[in-house]
Amino acid sequence: MLLLSNDDIEAVLDVKSAIDVMKDAYRELGEQRGASGVRSEILTPTARDDGLYSLLTMSGVAPTFGVGAVRINSDILTWPRTPAEIKRVKVPAAPGERYVGLVLLFSVETGEPLAIYPDGVVQRLRVAATCGLAAQYLARADARVVGLLGTGWQAGGQAAAIAAVRPIELIRCYSHDPARRQAFASETAKRLGIEVVAAASAQEAVKGADVVMCATSSMQPVLSSECIKPGMHISSLKRLELDTSAAAAADVVVTHVRKAAAQIVRTAGADLARDTEMAKAALSKALKQDELPDLADLVLKRTPGRRSSKDITLFLNYMGLGYQFAATGHVIWRRAQERGLGRRLDTDWFTSAVPS
Amino acid sequence: MLLLSNDDIEAVLDVKSAIDVMKDAYRELGEQRGASGVRSEILTPTARDDGLYSLLTMSGVAPTFGVGAVRINSDILTWPRTPAEIKRVKVPAAPGERYVGLVLLFSVETGEPLAIYPDGVVQRLRVAATCGLAAQYLARADARVVGLLGTGWQAGGQAAAIAAVRPIELIRCYSHDPARRQAFASETAKRLGIEVVAAASAQEAVKGADVVMCATSSMQPVLSSECIKPGMHISSLKRLELDTSAAAAADVVVTHVRKAAAQIVRTAGADLARDTEMAKAALSKALKQDELPDLADLVLKRTPGRRSSKDITLFLNYMGLGYQFAATGHVIWRRAQERGLGRRLDTDWFTSAVPS
Repeated sequence: MLLLSNDDIEAVLDVKSAIDVMKDAYRELGEQRGASGVRSEILTPTARDDGLYSLLTMSGVAPTFGVGAVRINSDILTWPRTPAEIKRVKVPAAPGERYVGLVLLFSVETGEPLAIYPDGVVQRLRVAATCGLAAQYLARADARVVGLLGTGWQAGGQAAAIAAVRPIELIRCYSHDPARRQAFASETAKRLGIEVVAAASAQEAVKGADVVMCATSSMQPVLSSECIKPGMHISSLKRLELDTSAAAAADVVVTHVRKAAAQIVRTAGADLARDTEMAKAALSKALKQDELPDLADLVLKRTPGRRSSKDITLFLNYMGLGYQFAATGHVIWRRAQERGLGRRLDTDWFTSAVPS
Repeated sequence: MLLLSNDDIEAVLDVKSAIDVMKDAYRELGEQRGASGVRSEILTPTARDDGLYSLLTMSGVAPTFGVGAVRINSDILTWPRTPAEIKRVKVPAAPGERYVGLVLLFSVETGEPLAIYPDGVVQRLRVAATCGLAAQYLARADARVVGLLGTGWQAGGQAAAIAAVRPIELIRCYSHDPARRQAFASETAKRLGIEVVAAASAQEAVKGADVVMCATSSMQPVLSSECIKPGMHISSLKRLELDTSAAAAADVVVTHVRKAAAQIVRTAGADLARDTEMAKAALSKALKQDELPDLADLVLKRTPGRRSSKDITLFLNYMGLGYQFAATGHVIWRRAQERGLGRRLDTDWFTSAVPS
């Protein structure tokens, strides 16, 4: 069994390859040859009064690629309120101020564990690749200017994804903290080799953009409908960063996955942020998310995607799937083996002579 | 982080300790201070035409013990039919003919991974402990004779559990294979220090027994209602090993957990054994399992359990809970640390500097 690090994963999987594998994967998923399990989250009190413990699991099997994956997140969550916004923030409470998210990869043929790795890099890549793949069907082919709302970890992935599928020349980014957005602009320009500038406001970032990508951790709308212009493609990662007026302004709305089973269980005393969840549920209902075409429909051409250069298109990338970790896992594992990356752990440590 | 083996777990957790921890745990669970997540299974085709790949996850958090647990099973399943019965059989298809089941344990305070271990030994212990705990409330205090149906891995756990809570003097075991049941009888007698004999039939094993434990992998009823006598306590591990007449004969019926969320997703081509699942669902419905008192009710004295020495009592231990792995995990981890057992792996290998 292979133990891989975030660095190993960064070395073997770029956003372009991730988009390619996702394209095959969504075909399998849409034809029900692959599947995700139920996403399950348990919320309980933790040591911090202003936080909750969250144990989140999701799983998926991609028989075409011969692998199943389980992703586990074991997080301390807080919901700090600043004058500008409410955010959902993971606290790096593990030793060394670290986060805890793991992917375990298994063989569909033998059941054996193939690899285990932290989920940080791959989580960003799969979110980015999903938006990138959607943009191949929804963004104008000549899209050159991107308005990027958010300058965090996910925003970096979004920038790379859109640059991989469209001839992007300029990204204007915005977040509340001027120093942070300036630093993000410099880093991203260097990494992608295109012009990235920090905008002074969300409006300024979005104005005249061909593509608007929302990648904030905000629980409040960040994009007002008056900024939305004909021909624009918009994508969003968080249910509460858009309001229904933005969705109403779009001619074509596609969701990541129409039907995804998920359940949150709260123990006694785990009541924090119940209101934001209710707001999310209400928004999903208002958007009629379970009736929208989804990414598999786009890939399988069951839905047309963009029909003209005037269409306003919107992609809602709200619910992650365990299946995405199986699809990316297969590429990661194969390439890591080819390049001799990672630590080899004895497979017997993770298997039993006795049944369970 | 601690990597433990089945031997390590056998060294630190006996059935008596497991029953004790379960007692505290079901109190927490019944008061909704602890919780299980949704049990999620994905079934897909695999290399063998007569089998399916199954990726099963369950999770639970026990805040009182400070831990959350995820249990993962990655199995090749078959359903062989013999003249006598249909069985559900896991195939040890991993290298070295091994099974793949893992438990991962996390801290509720910091989120960090605390331990990882195969689930073989603990799976048997938690099933055994659950039946043992139920027997404390449901079996007659003077129960001395056990009829044990099944002589596999789980049957060994059941024998130990009942011997831990009642003054058992004789166990009569039965399974179809004479050599297997004879070997089981010798092993179990030696291990528990009580008389264990192999019976020539299920009827012979059960006749005059104070406690009847069904621990088979059969998909067909193994206990007929005419064998059931006043004062008897019966427990069952598989939904299809009892028929409704056995349940109808009981004065007191208690289920392991009244409400447990579970979902099975099948991909295209994964149709094997659909009929047995439908039979299970029909039986659960006929038993009105979601209206029965459960183990937490017994422990919290919300339901009386056995009321007289004439009562026939029945415990249905059908649905495993991720929560049980959190409760046992806490004891395993603590004791393994105290005794210096297991391999220490660098916690940083399983955590990230970047959020996910």
